[in-house]
Amino acid sequence: MSVERSIAIFSPGLLGGSLVKTIQQRMPGVEVRVWARRDEAVEEVKNLFPNVVASTDLAAVIQGASLALLCMPIQYMPGIARQMVACDLADDLIVTDVGSVKGQVVAELEPIFQPSKAGFLGSHPMAGSQHTGLAHSRGDLFHQAACILTPTGQTKTGHLGRLRTFWQKLGCRIQEMTPQQHDHCVARISHLPHCMAVLTTLAALKQDKRVLDSSAGGFRDTTRVAGGDPDMWAGILMQNRAEVVSSLQDAASVLLELVEMLQTMDEEALRRFLAQAKALRDLLPAV
Amino acid sequence: MSVERSIAIFSPGLLGGSLVKTIQQRMPGVEVRVWARRDEAVEEVKNLFPNVVASTDLAAVIQGASLALLCMPIQYMPGIARQMVACDLADDLIVTDVGSVKGQVVAELEPIFQPSKAGFLGSHPMAGSQHTGLAHSRGDLFHQAACILTPTGQTKTGHLGRLRTFWQKLGCRIQEMTPQQHDHCVARISHLPHCMAVLTTLAALKQDKRVLDSSAGGFRDTTRVAGGDPDMWAGILMQNRAEVVSSLQDAASVLLELVEMLQTMDEEALRRFLAQAKALRDLLPAV
Repeated sequence: MSVERSIAIFSPGLLGGSLVKTIQQRMPGVEVRVWARRDEAVEEVKNLFPNVVASTDLAAVIQGASLALLCMPIQYMPGIARQMVACDLADDLIVTDVGSVKGQVVAELEPIFQPSKAGFLGSHPMAGSQHTGLAHSRGDLFHQAACILTPTGQTKTGHLGRLRTFWQKLGCRIQEMTPQQHDHCVARISHLPHCMAVLTTLAALKQDKRVLDSSAGGFRDTTRVAGGDPDMWAGILMQNRAEVVSSLQDAASVLLELVEMLQTMDEEALRRFLAQAKALRDLLPAV
Repeated sequence: MSVERSIAIFSPGLLGGSLVKTIQQRMPGVEVRVWARRDEAVEEVKNLFPNVVASTDLAAVIQGASLALLCMPIQYMPGIARQMVACDLADDLIVTDVGSVKGQVVAELEPIFQPSKAGFLGSHPMAGSQHTGLAHSRGDLFHQAACILTPTGQTKTGHLGRLRTFWQKLGCRIQEMTPQQHDHCVARISHLPHCMAVLTTLAALKQDKRVLDSSAGGFRDTTRVAGGDPDMWAGILMQNRAEVVSSLQDAASVLLELVEMLQTMDEEALRRFLAQAKALRDLLPAV
């Protein structure tokens, strides 16, 4: 039996919808409730998940929940958290999020819940898609995904263990970092690749998009994530801007090295440079 | 019935091997011969393709062929072409290649065949993989791939039409460009994405490769081609260095724009920048 009795999901997009599907599959008997801002979104949830309680009434959704997951864009989280803490919360409530940036989120949300018996603890399941919205949600989105938890000195007793158990039941591999380590790590492994896909698309096609007629798998894969939602990604990159800028500066520096090798025709150095990248990329297990 | 009677393939790697498989599937009745530099490679070909004549004897392989395909790294092509032209060549022989760079290749190879009745005409099927070697060859590698042909004022009568027909039978969509237009186009759509995948890998992992434990699909896809063969890619990038440097300089310039938006916290400009990339990337049909 699950230690969670009732799970409240705030905002039914790709991640929120995939959470509902996965919890229903993997945690039978646990009640799931969904809060959405708009009536239309509530109707969509009710149509897709007939067994789920869905409402625009935040107080009704959070009442009695043992776990609440914030799945809206990061910038809206503090406002929702302040509405939440004014409600009647269960003593054992853990509030977490699924946001891609942690430093600022944890710094803002943790103090909001500090005076209550509930507590905030950040989560970041490394799962997503260039597609967004409830319609793209999947029951296998979290399967074998890394999920980073970001406990702090203020994290309440028992919360870390319960949250680990929850994400593990959903199929995730758990990692723990401070919010700052998290932001450094995901800038390198997620935000930088996103930026590079965007830059590759622009540099390849801005002058003349007809070159697209000759494209093959290399262009397709290298630029796939540039099809992601611009509003969501503008929020993420802006929130993590210091770490993102630092990783982009490292990319600019290796770019200049590469240009230098080509201009001086140093084929031997170029071969070593490409071999170093290959050795690093080959560390990733094949799927 | 095919207009080609006997097709000679020089070097049985990923592309050479995939050519043998595809020709056997799609052009039944056409003789296929394979030349390899090493005895071991000849044996490997004979084991994989019992109906194919394979030899290290270049003169024997080219004799009577109506089409010869050069599939070795670009830098070895002129040497092989000079050995070829000293042999007994059929009057209707078309020599082509599958190399990723055309300006220098065409400038070197076309004059070698000019005095003979045979003629050179460049081809570039936009098909490949991060994996190389005969063992990875596939009968569907060319299916719906773009294939760029690079005729010049010296291209002999009838050769362009025959070569179009050949690649179409293999499943390719044909494009025609000058060798210079080709090198500009593939620098943007293929060589730049390759470089960006390499740079993303290095900038993400050089400092601390443990961030790889948190990687997801974005890093995987954006960096996939960085696993390609360093020797082959050093040759390609070096041969097309002027166009590659120019596209890298464009990438550096959009990179600096992005850093500037983040540093000045211009979220509105960032959103437009990401939306522009998304609009361009969305032009690519979904697979």
